[in-house]
Amino acid sequence: MKYELPELLLDIEDGVIDLGWGHPSSTLYPSAEVINAANIALAGQSATAFHYGAAQGFGPFLESLNLFLSKEESYGVTSSPKNLFLTAGASQGFDMTCTLFSEPGDCVFVEEPTYFVIEKIFRERGLDVIGVKTNSDGICLQDLEDKLKKGIRPRFLYSIPTYQNPTGISVPRKTRMELVQLAEKYNFLILADEVYQLLNFDSLPPEPMMHFDKNNRVISFGSFSKILAPGMRVGWIHSSEEIIEKFAGSAYAFSGGGLNHFSSVIVNEMLKSGDIEINLFNLRTTLKNRSDVMYDALQNHFSSQIQFNKPEGGYYYWLKFNETVNTEHLLPIARKYGVAYRPGNAFSESGNFDQYLRLTYTLYRSDEIEEGVERLYKAYGRYLR
Amino acid sequence: MKYELPELLLDIEDGVIDLGWGHPSSTLYPSAEVINAANIALAGQSATAFHYGAAQGFGPFLESLNLFLSKEESYGVTSSPKNLFLTAGASQGFDMTCTLFSEPGDCVFVEEPTYFVIEKIFRERGLDVIGVKTNSDGICLQDLEDKLKKGIRPRFLYSIPTYQNPTGISVPRKTRMELVQLAEKYNFLILADEVYQLLNFDSLPPEPMMHFDKNNRVISFGSFSKILAPGMRVGWIHSSEEIIEKFAGSAYAFSGGGLNHFSSVIVNEMLKSGDIEINLFNLRTTLKNRSDVMYDALQNHFSSQIQFNKPEGGYYYWLKFNETVNTEHLLPIARKYGVAYRPGNAFSESGNFDQYLRLTYTLYRSDEIEEGVERLYKAYGRYLR
Repeated sequence: MKYELPELLLDIEDGVIDLGWGHPSSTLYPSAEVINAANIALAGQSATAFHYGAAQGFGPFLESLNLFLSKEESYGVTSSPKNLFLTAGASQGFDMTCTLFSEPGDCVFVEEPTYFVIEKIFRERGLDVIGVKTNSDGICLQDLEDKLKKGIRPRFLYSIPTYQNPTGISVPRKTRMELVQLAEKYNFLILADEVYQLLNFDSLPPEPMMHFDKNNRVISFGSFSKILAPGMRVGWIHSSEEIIEKFAGSAYAFSGGGLNHFSSVIVNEMLKSGDIEINLFNLRTTLKNRSDVMYDALQNHFSSQIQFNKPEGGYYYWLKFNETVNTEHLLPIARKYGVAYRPGNAFSESGNFDQYLRLTYTLYRSDEIEEGVERLYKAYGRYLR
Repeated sequence: MKYELPELLLDIEDGVIDLGWGHPSSTLYPSAEVINAANIALAGQSATAFHYGAAQGFGPFLESLNLFLSKEESYGVTSSPKNLFLTAGASQGFDMTCTLFSEPGDCVFVEEPTYFVIEKIFRERGLDVIGVKTNSDGICLQDLEDKLKKGIRPRFLYSIPTYQNPTGISVPRKTRMELVQLAEKYNFLILADEVYQLLNFDSLPPEPMMHFDKNNRVISFGSFSKILAPGMRVGWIHSSEEIIEKFAGSAYAFSGGGLNHFSSVIVNEMLKSGDIEINLFNLRTTLKNRSDVMYDALQNHFSSQIQFNKPEGGYYYWLKFNETVNTEHLLPIARKYGVAYRPGNAFSESGNFDQYLRLTYTLYRSDEIEEGVERLYKAYGRYLR
């Protein structure tokens, strides 16, 4: 009797280079450092790691995290541990935010396109999801204001301000300030999904949204999923003390204790030792290199047949084909050629992104990325015939 | 600048033996075995532990868990891994059940008294909480039927059928069958909080609720919090395949992957090695011994001044004083004498439990338990004067 339930979320057909998964690379996890941290944390303070953790999160972890974030140039918001709350990853944070700050029937604005699972998460919570257009500055302020002026009153604006998923775009400083002003004026909360903020390449990203928050309008979601290991389920919320107190005071957090206490005790050792910083440095170097390889491969093969921006950080290329192309129709052909991706319409319920597709350069080695792009080009040639 | 945020949920005044916390003992965690399991899991399959886990849970963990549960005499329900879903603890499971199976305004029945945080969790989700009386068989079927016949239609009945918190009572087999029949007749789901099921002492408990389920009316919540370590946040849901598919198919589980993947990979090694079984054997022995010590101390000091049952498993003594006693008024005096507990009214919003209080024998050593009960007796004497 063998059930063979899957081990992982990843599900890739044999022989296919699947550039569709926004997952970290199997070969880049700092296993030895995690084992080392686990041994220190569990041997030295065993009961501490095993007990129910404090509802806001393990105090020493929140203090180490605060120090780490204030030292990181790409984050650079000086804050206090009182502004941080331990989550079991960004998704858990979004879910809990829905519980504490919304009710079914409320409306949430999302960028169009956006993270392809978030709309379903919000709908699972009974929220009405309304798309806001995006442009080269990220979210389109004009469209946002038009909707607000029409009287639509969202509870939340969900935004990925830095190295957006899927477009890779970062919202400029000025637009960030205007977003916060609109949130104040129209009384909504900005849920800033900032899980890519620390993954910059050559230049620094704009400051994270909490930098611009003056009146408790921003809830920022960070995570160790993209900068350490998603399986560990450790993330954080950065917000005003008032909002953090709502999370820490919730019955749910009290019932189970800190949202992922044991793993956070281990990550705390890695924050203290500097292993997280070293890992982040290594990731930036490797991901930039892989992005460069993907860029060259795309340029070499597709030349002017597609439009795209070179990402300045994060995980994604967002390719625009000419208007006769439908990337959902291209996908089965691509699979036959041994490559896959996420078609543009996966990132929006509007159906407006036929011409687009998203590639990631994080899961595969450089030689596989080159091979994958070459296969995609061949599949595209076949598709055009 | 030192913030000194708390590390743990536990918050005990210096010099006080606090018999109010339903937490495991600091000295009973199998630290060496967890470290060993972590080293095996992370060294041997590092990328596996670090990646996003499968939405239903790490397959090998679900298979090991299924084997473990079917072998444990105190559980003894033969099932399949397809009937199990990985949670980040029972609380997370309740929370997710609210998302997937209820909407604000729905009604939930709870036992009166019940787990003191659950009512707040349900209210956080907008549910109307209605108490159902209990008797020496646990939930009072007559009161339940009266409410149903009056036309109250709950979405859920939340019950702790075995070694109930706080009363220690186990619902008999016959009542379990009738509960399932009522759930079928009146179309509600039984949320069976069975986190104490495996902690039996001399005799076996009644079979868990899934044993009696025929038509997908039961969702059972198990956990490693009480039998291994709450900080690890690993639990499970046991239900019909149809219901498990709803959990595994949710957008939330897809977004973050398995609910606590990394920790479940470690626990899987402990299930495979048999360390969980050994730990469970040790816990049963130690907790039975501590319960015996508390029983003797209560008998010696209080004799016939209070009523209580000796628990057959689990964590709790539920003491009934005579009707002139108010345990909320007794508490500050008890604290002065260096002991604490949870007053009865903490476990019900009805306010009907003035005469009651709950003690736990899990957090402290036997000598501390004896000392704690002696202090409580002295405080009681002071209170009566």
